[in-house]
Amino acid sequence: MNITGKPKLFIPGPTHVDEEILNAFTEYPVGHRTASFSELYDNLVSGIQKVLFTDNTIYLCTCTATGLWEAAVRNTVRKRCANFVCGAFSSRWHDSTVMCGLPADAIHVELGEAIKPELVDNTLATGKYDVMTYVHNETSTGVMNPLGEIAEIMKKYPDVMFLVDMVSSMSSVKIEVDELGIDVALASVQKGWALPPGFSICSVSNKTLDISAKCDNKGLYFDFLVLDKYAKRSQTPSTPSIPHMYGLKRQLERIFAEGLKNRFQRHSDLADLVRAWALDRMGLFPELGYESATLTCVENTKGIDITDFQDRLLHKGYMISGGYGPLKGKTFRISHMGDIMLTDIEELLSVMDETLNEMN
Amino acid sequence: MNITGKPKLFIPGPTHVDEEILNAFTEYPVGHRTASFSELYDNLVSGIQKVLFTDNTIYLCTCTATGLWEAAVRNTVRKRCANFVCGAFSSRWHDSTVMCGLPADAIHVELGEAIKPELVDNTLATGKYDVMTYVHNETSTGVMNPLGEIAEIMKKYPDVMFLVDMVSSMSSVKIEVDELGIDVALASVQKGWALPPGFSICSVSNKTLDISAKCDNKGLYFDFLVLDKYAKRSQTPSTPSIPHMYGLKRQLERIFAEGLKNRFQRHSDLADLVRAWALDRMGLFPELGYESATLTCVENTKGIDITDFQDRLLHKGYMISGGYGPLKGKTFRISHMGDIMLTDIEELLSVMDETLNEMN
Repeated sequence: MNITGKPKLFIPGPTHVDEEILNAFTEYPVGHRTASFSELYDNLVSGIQKVLFTDNTIYLCTCTATGLWEAAVRNTVRKRCANFVCGAFSSRWHDSTVMCGLPADAIHVELGEAIKPELVDNTLATGKYDVMTYVHNETSTGVMNPLGEIAEIMKKYPDVMFLVDMVSSMSSVKIEVDELGIDVALASVQKGWALPPGFSICSVSNKTLDISAKCDNKGLYFDFLVLDKYAKRSQTPSTPSIPHMYGLKRQLERIFAEGLKNRFQRHSDLADLVRAWALDRMGLFPELGYESATLTCVENTKGIDITDFQDRLLHKGYMISGGYGPLKGKTFRISHMGDIMLTDIEELLSVMDETLNEMN
Repeated sequence: MNITGKPKLFIPGPTHVDEEILNAFTEYPVGHRTASFSELYDNLVSGIQKVLFTDNTIYLCTCTATGLWEAAVRNTVRKRCANFVCGAFSSRWHDSTVMCGLPADAIHVELGEAIKPELVDNTLATGKYDVMTYVHNETSTGVMNPLGEIAEIMKKYPDVMFLVDMVSSMSSVKIEVDELGIDVALASVQKGWALPPGFSICSVSNKTLDISAKCDNKGLYFDFLVLDKYAKRSQTPSTPSIPHMYGLKRQLERIFAEGLKNRFQRHSDLADLVRAWALDRMGLFPELGYESATLTCVENTKGIDITDFQDRLLHKGYMISGGYGPLKGKTFRISHMGDIMLTDIEELLSVMDETLNEMN
């Protein structure tokens, strides 16, 4: 059980939050049109740029990533959008695009499969699309899509905007945004960043801003040009979640104290550990070679009662996730992103073993 | 100076936040698809319904009220929207409506004037509009518009949707949403609710939901039907700002402990005190009889250097606001909403007197 009397979160969002971060949320607010605010703003932006290896503009947004999905397509789609879909979240980005009234197609692969370069190449070669959306890490299936390989293909299509959801990989996995040529990279903070939910981050290329100027009916809240006008003054267009900004400041300090290289390595080590456990006890759901580095989707090859398993773990103070949507009963998911440490996972795996034994 | 070493906020958002509220933000998150979450959700909704005297559905939104402006018009406007404008914020709601690609007219009054029943009646009598937007309390000019009188007029126009921004009056002033027939009532939490910024609340009538079903291109994030689907399960469509929900829970407990009647009376008393000070030392900017109950816009009749005045107060630990936009240099503003108590205002007014003397 977590020190707060609540179960410790090993679910893919909201994730476990360290006490230091929660304490940062108690800082008294400052006016959002003051120099102290802009100092905080600049501090966050430069930290995030380092984490994303980018010189692109960073926007700090008071919404969840669901809002940023909408922002990304509203500011770019003029012809037609190709939404690549490999699970529930990438599918929802497509729904969101359609609900904005934008022309879009969902390009599907089977659940558990990754979206590979050939599919992207064949789709974009039709010339039908001016925008594509790609979910780096699909938390519903535990698949991490091959972003680097896709970025190579995207170089063939300089006129197609490259929008990437890194909701559950940003800051946990090395992603060199500029090197990869990503136009919009977006994430909420309650996943890899390990903050409480309620805030999101995106990096936006200059090319995106040029195109945004040609898009209509974007509204005000998610218009990148409005965000940009204020970003130039180190401000946000409306009063943002200042508590989240204090939390993010503390988290960036912690990230740089650990060191980016060590942080990425820790996530890789955690994934190795959980995958080894899963392969030994049951199986892995994702296609071989595309298993996520930040959460593991275990295939229920033993046919255990997953709800019972989850309930027993909950009683012991640990919350994991069941299968998402059609995968309910067939899989369960363990998140190992953000502030989950090696000892946390070792403890969880040992309690999981103990619990499986009880259930036998 | 505030106990945190930061100036105490007497600005109209973000407002002063009590330590008890800040401490509530440190509570460890829960999964947003759990029973504990839904219990928290229901607790907030029933509390907000009491504060707003409504049985309408309440949505808890992870955005600022700027986002809810957009939500309100995207879910209602099919013919044409009348945006009544009496200052910077009501003007921005018009901008937001236009930027959504919706047909809209701004119906202006002079800065400092209120939007009165005759203007609304004459405008709607044209039959051009199916939606009207009304800002109850315009923080840029310190005008509180006569919501009750407008509600009477609106009874003549049952087919015109009545959208009300109560950003800086909700919970501080008695507003009987059902009695007044308000279709959408919206507010951020960093004003009257006295939470840190980053979250917002709206109440939505069944009529609004019926009309929303006929509106296109609403997107997903601000679609009331999507919010409604999840609200029926006591959930939000995406992961909300759980820290703000913890803060709001604590604040509702505090509000009911004070008593709604006492709370409304306190705001009225605070306003009387600040207005009396302003009239004695300088003047009041708003039209007589329409002065806001939650912030006072002082007219700089003595021609003092307002920036110098604000800086001196800041050094002593108190932050007030200057004039907004074209009113810069001509007015300054003192917020007395939310958790500002009588002793806080007495202290501020005394320091303001002392500071004005120093400047002579």
